[in-house]
Amino acid sequence: MSRSLDFLTEALRRLPGVGPKSAQRMAFHLLQHDREGAAMLSRALYQAVDTVHHCAMCNTFADTEVCELCADESRDRTLLCVVETPADQMMIEQTLTYKGLYFVLMGRLSPLDGIGPRDLHLDKLIGRAADGVVNEVVLATNFTNEGEATAHYISEMLKARGLKVSRLARGVPVGGELEYVDAGTIARAMLDRRSA
Amino acid sequence: MSRSLDFLTEALRRLPGVGPKSAQRMAFHLLQHDREGAAMLSRALYQAVDTVHHCAMCNTFADTEVCELCADESRDRTLLCVVETPADQMMIEQTLTYKGLYFVLMGRLSPLDGIGPRDLHLDKLIGRAADGVVNEVVLATNFTNEGEATAHYISEMLKARGLKVSRLARGVPVGGELEYVDAGTIARAMLDRRSA
Repeated sequence: MSRSLDFLTEALRRLPGVGPKSAQRMAFHLLQHDREGAAMLSRALYQAVDTVHHCAMCNTFADTEVCELCADESRDRTLLCVVETPADQMMIEQTLTYKGLYFVLMGRLSPLDGIGPRDLHLDKLIGRAADGVVNEVVLATNFTNEGEATAHYISEMLKARGLKVSRLARGVPVGGELEYVDAGTIARAMLDRRSA
Repeated sequence: MSRSLDFLTEALRRLPGVGPKSAQRMAFHLLQHDREGAAMLSRALYQAVDTVHHCAMCNTFADTEVCELCADESRDRTLLCVVETPADQMMIEQTLTYKGLYFVLMGRLSPLDGIGPRDLHLDKLIGRAADGVVNEVVLATNFTNEGEATAHYISEMLKARGLKVSRLARGVPVGGELEYVDAGTIARAMLDRRSA
């Protein structure tokens, strides 16, 4: 029909979660109803590929050599929080309970997907954590199997270098009713109980 | 975090069916794992916006003044099939049962969405159908309420100009078991029964 349209449909399939039908629907929509949006997306992609790289300190996405957060002099430089993704970092920032710096893994150990320690650039994390200023590393990877394994691996690695390592607390979620919380979480909350 | 990343996330939301979380996931994925795909999508969008327009004859998306199908001399120019979208046209082409030309509405009458006869460029369809060569117009809009209303409106419009108009047959789908077919379809199949 139209080569440019076929090429666009093909390219849209590179987006995660977009199959052939969705890609076609997206292409039709953009060309029929939102050419301005299509042009904007084209520019945004070009600009992002051109300017976004990884912060030299925390490894998150940044336009500058060092990201804004790492450059912020008011943050506590003795604390380093390790998260899987920039989205996780944002969630922690929203809680306003943490004033230290971050290290963003941009992934997790996942042998099934072929992601080993080398793919996560853990050497960069070691260099960062062993800068002589960082006093405690808070592991805030997800509480999934892969996140837990990643936390365990990093914990062993950093403790071997004499660093203090902590992990986010596990337990019953705020607002949680015991009747509806899974047994594993309750078991963990019981083991980790604290004086009231 | 990164202005370029924010801009990209914002732009991805212009795609139909993509909310804030999906847009973020897409942006992260492209920047972390598929920058080549991002660059390709950027080029595809730019090229599509730049080159894709509507075929002067059938109104579908095309890179050339007249699309390949309309330019194909082997097609029967006395038959004109009206469909809602290029995707519908492709489905009919796949059946290999139709050798005429098409007119693609690029939509349907939908008063609730504010799409009236004028938005569908029905004047272009009239001009096309009344070229003196077209002998029969086959209405192949969807069998939804909106598709049926669109077919009815176009049918009245073309019949008033003395054109022969037909509609795709309704009935029990191939492989359909009466027990599981809805009553409306069976009723229609009964009314439209044909000699065996």
